[in-house]
Amino acid sequence: MAGSTFGNIFKITTWGESHGKGLGAVVDGCPAGLSLCEADIQPYLDRRKPGQTSIATPRKESDQVEILSGVFEGKTTGTPISLIVRNTSQKSSDYSEIASYYRPGHADYTYDAKYGFRDYTGGGRSSGRETIGRVAAGAIAVKILKEMGISVTAYTKSIGPVFVDMSAFDQTAIYTTATCMPDKKADICAMEYLAECMKNKDSSGGIIECIINGLPAGIGDPVFEKLDACLSKAIMSIGSVKAVEIGDGVLVSQSLGSVNNDAFTCTGNKISKKTNHAGGILGGISDGSPILLRAHIKPTPSIFSRQETINKKGENIQIEIKGRHDPVIVPRAVVVVEAMTALTLLDACMMNMTARLDYLTDFYRHV
Amino acid sequence: MAGSTFGNIFKITTWGESHGKGLGAVVDGCPAGLSLCEADIQPYLDRRKPGQTSIATPRKESDQVEILSGVFEGKTTGTPISLIVRNTSQKSSDYSEIASYYRPGHADYTYDAKYGFRDYTGGGRSSGRETIGRVAAGAIAVKILKEMGISVTAYTKSIGPVFVDMSAFDQTAIYTTATCMPDKKADICAMEYLAECMKNKDSSGGIIECIINGLPAGIGDPVFEKLDACLSKAIMSIGSVKAVEIGDGVLVSQSLGSVNNDAFTCTGNKISKKTNHAGGILGGISDGSPILLRAHIKPTPSIFSRQETINKKGENIQIEIKGRHDPVIVPRAVVVVEAMTALTLLDACMMNMTARLDYLTDFYRHV
Amino acid sequence: MAGSTFGNIFKITTWGESHGKGLGAVVDGCPAGLSLCEADIQPYLDRRKPGQTSIATPRKESDQVEILSGVFEGKTTGTPISLIVRNTSQKSSDYSEIASYYRPGHADYTYDAKYGFRDYTGGGRSSGRETIGRVAAGAIAVKILKEMGISVTAYTKSIGPVFVDMSAFDQTAIYTTATCMPDKKADICAMEYLAECMKNKDSSGGIIECIINGLPAGIGDPVFEKLDACLSKAIMSIGSVKAVEIGDGVLVSQSLGSVNNDAFTCTGNKISKKTNHAGGILGGISDGSPILLRAHIKPTPSIFSRQETINKKGENIQIEIKGRHDPVIVPRAVVVVEAMTALTLLDACMMNMTARLDYLTDFYRHV
Amino acid sequence: MAGSTFGNIFKITTWGESHGKGLGAVVDGCPAGLSLCEADIQPYLDRRKPGQTSIATPRKESDQVEILSGVFEGKTTGTPISLIVRNTSQKSSDYSEIASYYRPGHADYTYDAKYGFRDYTGGGRSSGRETIGRVAAGAIAVKILKEMGISVTAYTKSIGPVFVDMSAFDQTAIYTTATCMPDKKADICAMEYLAECMKNKDSSGGIIECIINGLPAGIGDPVFEKLDACLSKAIMSIGSVKAVEIGDGVLVSQSLGSVNNDAFTCTGNKISKKTNHAGGILGGISDGSPILLRAHIKPTPSIFSRQETINKKGENIQIEIKGRHDPVIVPRAVVVVEAMTALTLLDACMMNMTARLDYLTDFYRHV
Repeated sequence: MAGSTFGNIFKITTWGESHGKGLGAVVDGCPAGLSLCEADIQPYLDRRKPGQTSIATPRKESDQVEILSGVFEGKTTGTPISLIVRNTSQKSSDYSEIASYYRPGHADYTYDAKYGFRDYTGGGRSSGRETIGRVAAGAIAVKILKEMGISVTAYTKSIGPVFVDMSAFDQTAIYTTATCMPDKKADICAMEYLAECMKNKDSSGGIIECIINGLPAGIGDPVFEKLDACLSKAIMSIGSVKAVEIGDGVLVSQSLGSVNNDAFTCTGNKISKKTNHAGGILGGISDGSPILLRAHIKPTPSIFSRQETINKKGENIQIEIKGRHDPVIVPRAVVVVEAMTALTLLDACMMNMTARLDYLTDFYRHV
Repeated sequence: MAGSTFGNIFKITTWGESHGKGLGAVVDGCPAGLSLCEADIQPYLDRRKPGQTSIATPRKESDQVEILSGVFEGKTTGTPISLIVRNTSQKSSDYSEIASYYRPGHADYTYDAKYGFRDYTGGGRSSGRETIGRVAAGAIAVKILKEMGISVTAYTKSIGPVFVDMSAFDQTAIYTTATCMPDKKADICAMEYLAECMKNKDSSGGIIECIINGLPAGIGDPVFEKLDACLSKAIMSIGSVKAVEIGDGVLVSQSLGSVNNDAFTCTGNKISKKTNHAGGILGGISDGSPILLRAHIKPTPSIFSRQETINKKGENIQIEIKGRHDPVIVPRAVVVVEAMTALTLLDACMMNMTARLDYLTDFYRHV
Repeated sequence: MAGSTFGNIFKITTWGESHGKGLGAVVDGCPAGLSLCEADIQPYLDRRKPGQTSIATPRKESDQVEILSGVFEGKTTGTPISLIVRNTSQKSSDYSEIASYYRPGHADYTYDAKYGFRDYTGGGRSSGRETIGRVAAGAIAVKILKEMGISVTAYTKSIGPVFVDMSAFDQTAIYTTATCMPDKKADICAMEYLAECMKNKDSSGGIIECIINGLPAGIGDPVFEKLDACLSKAIMSIGSVKAVEIGDGVLVSQSLGSVNNDAFTCTGNKISKKTNHAGGILGGISDGSPILLRAHIKPTPSIFSRQETINKKGENIQIEIKGRHDPVIVPRAVVVVEAMTALTLLDACMMNMTARLDYLTDFYRHV
Repeated sequence: MAGSTFGNIFKITTWGESHGKGLGAVVDGCPAGLSLCEADIQPYLDRRKPGQTSIATPRKESDQVEILSGVFEGKTTGTPISLIVRNTSQKSSDYSEIASYYRPGHADYTYDAKYGFRDYTGGGRSSGRETIGRVAAGAIAVKILKEMGISVTAYTKSIGPVFVDMSAFDQTAIYTTATCMPDKKADICAMEYLAECMKNKDSSGGIIECIINGLPAGIGDPVFEKLDACLSKAIMSIGSVKAVEIGDGVLVSQSLGSVNNDAFTCTGNKISKKTNHAGGILGGISDGSPILLRAHIKPTPSIFSRQETINKKGENIQIEIKGRHDPVIVPRAVVVVEAMTALTLLDACMMNMTARLDYLTDFYRHV
């Protein structure tokens, strides 16, 4: 319960710090028989690496994943898959200054408050590098979901005031623009906005949206394990996320029932909904429509302008953070949202396999 | 994992349907030695009951709680506390019509998709009455938190376009207005808005806000069990919630680092923050400031205007829902938000008691 | 984690004390579509009730179960099944004496040590009546296992020095003899032995054996969730059990590899083993042979002879326990062993349904 | 739930196969502030390594542990501790023969039955090397327990027919004899017995006993999480264990209440028991006496005499297993029993810290 394990049947445990020996994940409960090698996982890690763009930290992170267990002759065996990414570029910088005070917007103070001290090198486990374990494990979940016909696609919806034009949605742009926006024009505007932020020694927030296609109706459990509740926890557990929306999200509080209700309709024998304000979930259970969620990401807390704070002696001081930091977290978090969504969905799909008595009796008739 | 259990150490399991014999909760992991009787719980259940106002269903729900176990001579014994609320007003209405089709915005279709059939009387377990177990159990968590100096206060922040004026915050109004707004003027406006909705055979959404005071810094666990992640799941698991915000929430995605970062400051030896955009949580761990969260609630799906949907035969039909239904869910959900928040906080506080080695060694030196 | 919840997917939570208002269980994760009514459960509760024999307490326990939720029109809905058994015969005896001291062999002292005080009326939750919740919930698991072709049969193997003759195994005798022995001759001897015990104001221990037939190979998970490990916990969690054996059990420590290894053999295309020293489990996973386990039950701690102990003031005293108590726990625990075994097996069978990738892809191709 | 995670608050996840790249464990929930380095763990791993004796496999296993995360400047930080032991001596033997059939007494068949195929090199995850993760993680638990004044001591009680003489108990002998017996004379006899076994191409079982001193009264939770139930699962989850006993264990089933009940006594204000048939646990909760448990270990299934079995084609065949294998598992499993016991106790002690309301209020008054 200390917080590094996620999932019920498809269960991952992550570990590692920014400047320790490495980071990793153990995936337990992965079904046997899945073809798996490092090349299935590496592209996802590459997506969360800083690019060679003006908005990404120039720290070189090769972030090569190695599979240490759980795969035999190219297939998963059903036993835990241990994944490791060695840290390579941690240098013995002078962290004595950063160790002495609490950076605003960071977890420096809260880790000290909880544990009595903290690993102050590069943020320790509160670093964004913590997400490496999530992404590596999530890549496996994504691969399994694909075999089940389910796809998960996240992208940057906005950076600061710049929103993508969804009518110009271009999926390939997600993987080729520096902002991970599915709209090259918006990407250009956003890059200009970020350049301005950097000039002002400031940083920007943004929105990540995620669409799930192919999820059948019936996934998710009532009451505390509603699919939207599980997704919210998964997404809100990503550092810097401050709000999660499902479907129309915050708009529903100012909507009307006559507008917000989605009419069911039947064409042939296929049931669908005329609209999807609900974002594909009713009563915590998927309704067969695309699942839609959004995460609101706060601006990078590391900014270069002068800030007020306190040091460990309790003195009020002013600081200027050095080094180089991304002016926006959003683009690198896109694949993290995908990973957490995939982990949540796969686990919910597994849990659903015992929802009806005939599922059990049919299964055990054939085993 | 089927979804009716919540919490790790302070663990509740709820059960019951709208029109079954009753509803209840089993609270396991409640510390021994707490004074507890029905009168501690009943006021919370009374707050979620429909009032005698124009916006509440006239169904008479006495909702009297009975403690069946776990209390001896007025004190909790450390063993499970079983709570039951008998259903009294379920009448043998004719549900054959409702059984035959899927109401838009309700979970009728998704329950059928998951389980093959459903309890169609009054919504079964997807009914709002499901929250009775949460509220009864949550009342115990609230009482324990109080003894620890922690308070949880939720209220209606908006109904449709009508927002409370926080500068006129009046806590008693929460418990006396029909809308549970802490602002009597806003309450009047909201009631007018709702009257309009009802006249239009329509319904309204709204926002519930919740403030936690007295929570020390250090509560919450890193990575997957972040305090905000746990709160999000807890709140999103309440039916009709479609978005959860922490602190500034959705605003952060359009904010700047220079604005969003909260400066630490020290007065005497007390550490605080000059602002609280973060809503009291940094890196998933409480920072000692008030925790702030908001839930966006969708409009009541049961509206009286004509709606399109399908029946179980797959035919496209038009329906008009009968009976009486609240034009807004928000006021009755306020105490549910309080309950889920309290359950989450208490569990996190319990989990925190082993965060440091000296906590263990000190404890076991005295036991 | 406070100990009243059992199982991962098929999950039960029990509650209640000996002399409180009642006892019960909430079964969460029961598949939808199972025919279920009180008559399915009551026979199991009747088997744990004291009979009208010389070895059973004359306390009248009608122990009528009521289903409060989770069943609609005779079928389980997939939502939690709340079961309650009201206590009817708790009388306001004078418990002041029993409250003042610690009975040897009972949990009086340890409950006080843990919780600071205890419910001393009839043992509170440490009473044998605690098993009512297990048996009621277990009856549902047994019913589902039957539909899957799996049977669980427990019986008394020995009482004190009297062992059943397995070559004379008579299943009906389990349900008709006072000792629950599958051998009427052994039953007579055991009853004589118990009469002698009672005359001496003493009590006897015994062994319960349990055989599972029809469980396919492949059930159970490696490492910490081995099927035998899960069964051991389940059985050892029954009060008064002090040892658990699988297959040859304690004999293996004095055996030889050449004797203990079970040879595999193939007839037609059916794989089996020539012997079953392993008790149907290899590496924590079922091998398709019958599962065999044994529980060693201690003598009833309530005996009428004079005993030394201490009172709550810390004075050394001598006591003589009054009232009537069974001279042996074994017969009434037989159905409890069956229940705990069934709960463990069903949960393991459910968990197994995601062991292979093609299980998932096949399932979701049809949903 | 796939079985590689153990514990609730102090939670470990193990991974790795006999002939893969390595094995390891992630320890989550370790309190911050514990001094920890590889030298704290290595001695425990060394104890499970084969020695240079006639009864141990000559395979050279250096089994050097490396700490990858969770420790900063010599102290645990409260974040997950990742431990890795690289496999160094796995050679590319020819496993085609072993891949083609099912060895009696091994998990070859059951893994195939469950997963459809298996890692046949050296037993994969069903190998005894799986225990490396348990021992490495357990060493941390042992260290914490020591700081709390709790010690865990396991030793070989018997090998085949040779039992130690407890009146000659010599703790140092545990760590110096090849058999891990606390009695050098018994060690000599046991070694002779094993030499005989080896000559006969056979193997032997044995008993491991474990004593816990210093555990205060009150640890363990009622009903399903009884301390003895948790210990049973922990111990039975070790490969080759077929029976677990607490206190007098299997003897209780033939005992009398008058003999089996332990009288309480008070000297000064210290409560103790005159005897300890119960093995330190009453009603699933520790009573302050030493905890006593025993594990019965089956003979090594790998024997060199000719055995009957089947191959994967379903043909009945005869095999002779090659290579070198220990004629007894017991000595190398002693430290594994210690590790699993320590993990269980520490977790139960952590869980106990919220058992009473004043524990919480006292704690949060000081935080």
